[in-house]
Amino acid sequence: MTGAAEPGRVTFVSSGPGDPELLTLRAVARLRTADAVLFDDLSAGPILSHAPAEADLVAVGKRAGRPSPNQDHVSRLLVDYARGGGHVVRLKSGDAGIFGRLEEELAALEAAAIPYEIVPGVTAASAAAAAAGLPLTRRLTARRLQFVTGHDVTGALPEGLNMAALTDAQATTVVYMGRRTFAALAERLIAGGLPPDTPALLAEGISTGAQRIAESTVARLGTELAAAPSSAPTLILYGALARAGLIAR
Amino acid sequence: MTGAAEPGRVTFVSSGPGDPELLTLRAVARLRTADAVLFDDLSAGPILSHAPAEADLVAVGKRAGRPSPNQDHVSRLLVDYARGGGHVVRLKSGDAGIFGRLEEELAALEAAAIPYEIVPGVTAASAAAAAAGLPLTRRLTARRLQFVTGHDVTGALPEGLNMAALTDAQATTVVYMGRRTFAALAERLIAGGLPPDTPALLAEGISTGAQRIAESTVARLGTELAAAPSSAPTLILYGALARAGLIAR
Repeated sequence: MTGAAEPGRVTFVSSGPGDPELLTLRAVARLRTADAVLFDDLSAGPILSHAPAEADLVAVGKRAGRPSPNQDHVSRLLVDYARGGGHVVRLKSGDAGIFGRLEEELAALEAAAIPYEIVPGVTAASAAAAAAGLPLTRRLTARRLQFVTGHDVTGALPEGLNMAALTDAQATTVVYMGRRTFAALAERLIAGGLPPDTPALLAEGISTGAQRIAESTVARLGTELAAAPSSAPTLILYGALARAGLIAR
Repeated sequence: MTGAAEPGRVTFVSSGPGDPELLTLRAVARLRTADAVLFDDLSAGPILSHAPAEADLVAVGKRAGRPSPNQDHVSRLLVDYARGGGHVVRLKSGDAGIFGRLEEELAALEAAAIPYEIVPGVTAASAAAAAAGLPLTRRLTARRLQFVTGHDVTGALPEGLNMAALTDAQATTVVYMGRRTFAALAERLIAGGLPPDTPALLAEGISTGAQRIAESTVARLGTELAAAPSSAPTLILYGALARAGLIAR
């Protein structure tokens, strides 16, 4: 870190789904000028090698797919580093604005009058669909694309789900962090009128060496996931997207 | 192009919202080995400079925000180039899988047994939110994020809109290519129960030199856009995202 005389600033850098090649050129440029990098577990590894050798690398210990009780701690740490001066990069996996609890860190910076920039990135849904050879929207059959999270802060399925939105077979739905709750969600979707054989796609470890993509249906995947707990970062896609035979590659 | 003896292959490269710095490292790597690049109007410019000097650069003439009657022509051209051999890059703005009519080009390649890869990218919604300093989701108030298109192939508001999904003030909704139809959409949203003063954000020319972001409400923006036609690429965001005072930067 540079001296405290220089005012600090923060760049939220979206690191993409995990593959270092899915960083943007701007993300790399910002990492290169970092005095400190605060990163979650998922965004570690080769991505950090873009930071200068002398930069502080600080693991803040959040993990995708798990409830994260320490958000206040992360926000405080971020403010503390920024007050120390220099350029603080807050590395967030995927796109920082999508299920990254970015609002809490932004609010902490605004309260402390610390300037920031946000570098957008590739969200996991785009990477999963690309890996599966599938578009997320289709002109006639999937004109709406929606992203939901599979858990609230307690780890349970969130309250107040919009069932009319989620049981719409004419949309593509992507469930982030939904592995542990998908059995319960699938049950509610089917009770709400979504056909049990609606195509579904399980995408694990997207854009990492452990990537696995499996075709299923909403009903079958609910049962399968209930029987096979795992901590792999998981995305579940369901709806109209898998209907045109394009899944079979 | 290289000789026809070598089998051709296609890479769909997502170019991001326009700013060349929002290309991914993989997108740049694929462009560097291109024998031909088929690009839409929006993805032209400095992004193409990553292609080798000897590569064929082919404008296929699609434009974001306009109905595009020539999709068949684009697909045929893509197949023809790939059959000619070598590495054909099909550059698509934003993320190729989101409102890019990717399915039609994929189907043409599959019918012709031409192998392909898809490189995901930064979709315009992520870039617009980042530029506005806003997250697209919020832990308690915006757990669902949805993307819809503002027009069908005729340029009109699509039929069969899921009004329960779209009038949900607890979601963040992003309307792609919705400038010309937003007045009509806003009217239907309000008739369907969405509060007229629901926060809305107009994002024009995102990540380009002509970027403009303006705060509004659903009712006001509908009226404003009806009175001010423009061909600028436009995104409209509305819903819970603008509620925490973070918009004011």
